[in-house]
Amino acid sequence: MRLQSENKVEINDRVIGGSTPLVCLPLVAKGKSELLEQARELEVLFPDLLEWRIDAYDAVEDVDACLAALTALKAEIDRIPLIFTCRIHTEGGFNNIAEQDRLKLITAAIESGGVDIVDIELCNPSVFIETVKQAAVRNDAKLILSYHNFDETPDEPFILEKLVKAQEMGADIAKLAAMPKNYEDVLTLLSATLKARSGAVKTPIVTMSMGEIGGLTRLAGGLFGSDITFAVGQKSSAPGQIPIGKLKQAMAVLYE
Amino acid sequence: MRLQSENKVEINDRVIGGSTPLVCLPLVAKGKSELLEQARELEVLFPDLLEWRIDAYDAVEDVDACLAALTALKAEIDRIPLIFTCRIHTEGGFNNIAEQDRLKLITAAIESGGVDIVDIELCNPSVFIETVKQAAVRNDAKLILSYHNFDETPDEPFILEKLVKAQEMGADIAKLAAMPKNYEDVLTLLSATLKARSGAVKTPIVTMSMGEIGGLTRLAGGLFGSDITFAVGQKSSAPGQIPIGKLKQAMAVLYE
Repeated sequence: MRLQSENKVEINDRVIGGSTPLVCLPLVAKGKSELLEQARELEVLFPDLLEWRIDAYDAVEDVDACLAALTALKAEIDRIPLIFTCRIHTEGGFNNIAEQDRLKLITAAIESGGVDIVDIELCNPSVFIETVKQAAVRNDAKLILSYHNFDETPDEPFILEKLVKAQEMGADIAKLAAMPKNYEDVLTLLSATLKARSGAVKTPIVTMSMGEIGGLTRLAGGLFGSDITFAVGQKSSAPGQIPIGKLKQAMAVLYE
Repeated sequence: MRLQSENKVEINDRVIGGSTPLVCLPLVAKGKSELLEQARELEVLFPDLLEWRIDAYDAVEDVDACLAALTALKAEIDRIPLIFTCRIHTEGGFNNIAEQDRLKLITAAIESGGVDIVDIELCNPSVFIETVKQAAVRNDAKLILSYHNFDETPDEPFILEKLVKAQEMGADIAKLAAMPKNYEDVLTLLSATLKARSGAVKTPIVTMSMGEIGGLTRLAGGLFGSDITFAVGQKSSAPGQIPIGKLKQAMAVLYE
């Protein structure tokens, strides 16, 4: 019954933007052995996608070490599509990493062939975005352009504008996460998502209201057009994420 | 985290309008033995409330038979509060029962002392509503005034107006059910519920979007101010009701 995306993204049999929203688990680790151990623990929870939040990694500024870890991670998770994310500090990143270091790391990771999807923020300079986009196209990786607001929920036109801008700037998937102050903010986010899905945005969309108040959007956002929901496997990467088992049970009620 | 009602309704330790929405199961039976068997089956599913939809009862026009069944039902369900409903045909009732017969049955049931909550429609003549209200007050029963639309979802001001009108006409609980054509209608109903709860309506509120599209409201309507959700135990009484076990599991994710 949910509204599907006009342009779907298909990776290893997972369809983003199809008949059901996908569940993604974040990998948040400081070192390589922790990363691989976490990957082994998360695999058995059957996530549709995994996201490595490399901004939490101690050796994040050592590109060679990161690429070695990425290769080992890909070998471990096999066909589960991987989102590679070095989140900018001002939008929820665990560490403050200089722009040039982020760009170098992200492009090297894409060029290594180990990245299925890369997530970078819309707030990056357009040359940054363009460079990452070109690397992604060359290596058959998909691009998420994202916007995060941990303080408040912008109004509906602003949310729509960000999702449309992501699409215009070359995103294969447009993402927006905002913090609600009340349940009205939750309805604003769902309504903006529905408007985006109903016409303005042809790519898959990922939206969520964060925190406890926004929990509903992690469960039911898919009905309104959100194509990926982030759950907790072992460690959460943003406030309000629900443990994957409970989330999948509850989603089954809405999407069956 | 949900918004509680200003005026709560408390019956046998169940609080309507409190920290969690209550789950009600409908009793829909043609005869007395079926009714009592259904009650025994539903009890073990631990509903917070039961609703006897007497409009589905074959002997609905035989007041004495109905009162005897009511007495037996109350003995069976013990302290589970009972909503007594003879739904008008134009708003989803199973049979077409003349206005005077409905009034006679409803007031007799209330006067028998076997009714905790009575649900009648706002569309009844005001003298009908006033008569039922007086009987309810005399017998310490609570009054639901309800509005159902099986064709469409009215706009937000209309929904708010109906809920306010229910309160003005003496309802202890204001109820509205509407059929959505799309997910925008679902957001309209949730938004109207939130506005009602945030100021205009002091009584507990019961709202839902019916049908498959509206399933979300049966699960999450409580976050926006709906205080009772109707689930399926054995038989459903309206389209879109979710089996109680699955509903409770999913609700636990949102309300824990």
